Amino acid sequence: MDNFQNFGLILSAALTFGAFTIIYVLRWVLQYREGLSWEGGPALFNWHPVLQLSGFIFLNGLAIIVYRLPWTWQGSKETMRYIHAGLNMAAFLCAVVSLSAVFGSQSSANFPDLFSLHSWLGLTAVALFGLQMVLSASIYLFPFTPSSWKAAFMPLHVFVGRLLFGGTIAVSLIGITERLIFSLVDPKYTDYPAEAAFANVMGVLLVAYGVTILWISTRASWKRPSEFTQSEGIEDKVK
Amino acid sequence: MDNFQNFGLILSAALTFGAFTIIYVLRWVLQYREGLSWEGGPALFNWHPVLQLSGFIFLNGLAIIVYRLPWTWQGSKETMRYIHAGLNMAAFLCAVVSLSAVFGSQSSANFPDLFSLHSWLGLTAVALFGLQMVLSASIYLFPFTPSSWKAAFMPLHVFVGRLLFGGTIAVSLIGITERLIFSLVDPKYTDYPAEAAFANVMGVLLVAYGVTILWISTRASWKRPSEFTQSEGIEDKVK
Repeated sequence: MDNFQNFGLILSAALTFGAFTIIYVLRWVLQYREGLSWEGGPALFNWHPVLQLSGFIFLNGLAIIVYRLPWTWQGSKETMRYIHAGLNMAAFLCAVVSLSAVFGSQSSANFPDLFSLHSWLGLTAVALFGLQMVLSASIYLFPFTPSSWKAAFMPLHVFVGRLLFGGTIAVSLIGITERLIFSLVDPKYTDYPAEAAFANVMGVLLVAYGVTILWISTRASWKRPSEFTQSEGIEDKVK
Repeated sequence: MDNFQNFGLILSAALTFGAFTIIYVLRWVLQYREGLSWEGGPALFNWHPVLQLSGFIFLNGLAIIVYRLPWTWQGSKETMRYIHAGLNMAAFLCAVVSLSAVFGSQSSANFPDLFSLHSWLGLTAVALFGLQMVLSASIYLFPFTPSSWKAAFMPLHVFVGRLLFGGTIAVSLIGITERLIFSLVDPKYTDYPAEAAFANVMGVLLVAYGVTILWISTRASWKRPSEFTQSEGIEDKVK
């Protein structure tokens, strides 16, 4: 019982950090930057941080912990698997639209693409995320995959999932820093104007979201109990 | 047996990535930047990336996997615990000297301190690393700590350890990016000169080191077997 109270506390913390990250990124682009628009220029670019933080990372974080919600354990694991996949699919779509926004705005501004460590690591992360989705859907959502394959692939699936979640947060922190240095001119980032402090706090909130999600996803006692996980596939539908 | 061949392969990969990261950071500061010196200026600053990558992160990575080396399993766990603590102590000392280098060079150049997300997260990480060391030494190296306390603290110790290892790599990636933007003038970072590509590759090598270390540290089958870990403390010395 105490264990589930702790779970509720940490889950509330994670959702609060996630919600504040979304509020901060929206206020960043709407108040300090040029707002949001699909018309091109900096307002098109701004979809990049908004969709990465509020879409890709926030939804991916929810997908990671969705099996660990105790009130879902009596229900079908099959359903949770589709929710997990659906959230990750939505996250991936946000990442793809976010990338098209940044390439579009940079080409219209004659700003170079793909010179930075941020772009190298970020594109690699999104590509690996897509690969992970295709492989995992083939293995876990396809009804005829042997159980032994499902079990054998699971440690890699979990490791890559957590790695990409943590990795995309790291890539975002590089991106926030780059944006502040490139777009703050007078005062500069090094002069520490209000926007710099605001965006730094946004980065800290994003890290706090990541840490709480990873804490939830790595507690052995918060794992969906195995008596439910044993009954997989068709049996779940019969229940 | 196959399991240990895989272990040897991944361990070799981790050490190779780590060694190349060290070679790259040394070549970066010696060939592309102003070299290394304790006299102040940019050559003093350069100790910061060198000590963080080749000291703090590399040694911390070794400390994390030291229990997982199969050829040490017949020996005393107590010895491995002191090696783990010693490597982390050396890593922490590198971080402290590295921070004094950056504060020293920035004050001599009238470059502001602590305005950046990099500095906020980096200082927090080093402070938490110090706290983790003090707490862990009190619990695991102090002979009279009850076993129940040791066991209760272990999940937090492991989580925080992996988090700070991954986190300091993320902070380094921000730092590499900042340094490239601030110090490359003509050509700029956005012009993608040879130094930019070189330092980006260094960042990728650092990530590869981090991923292989985290993979080794999270494989259940590569954990030190419990028949050895059960016999703790005084019994180990008797053997």
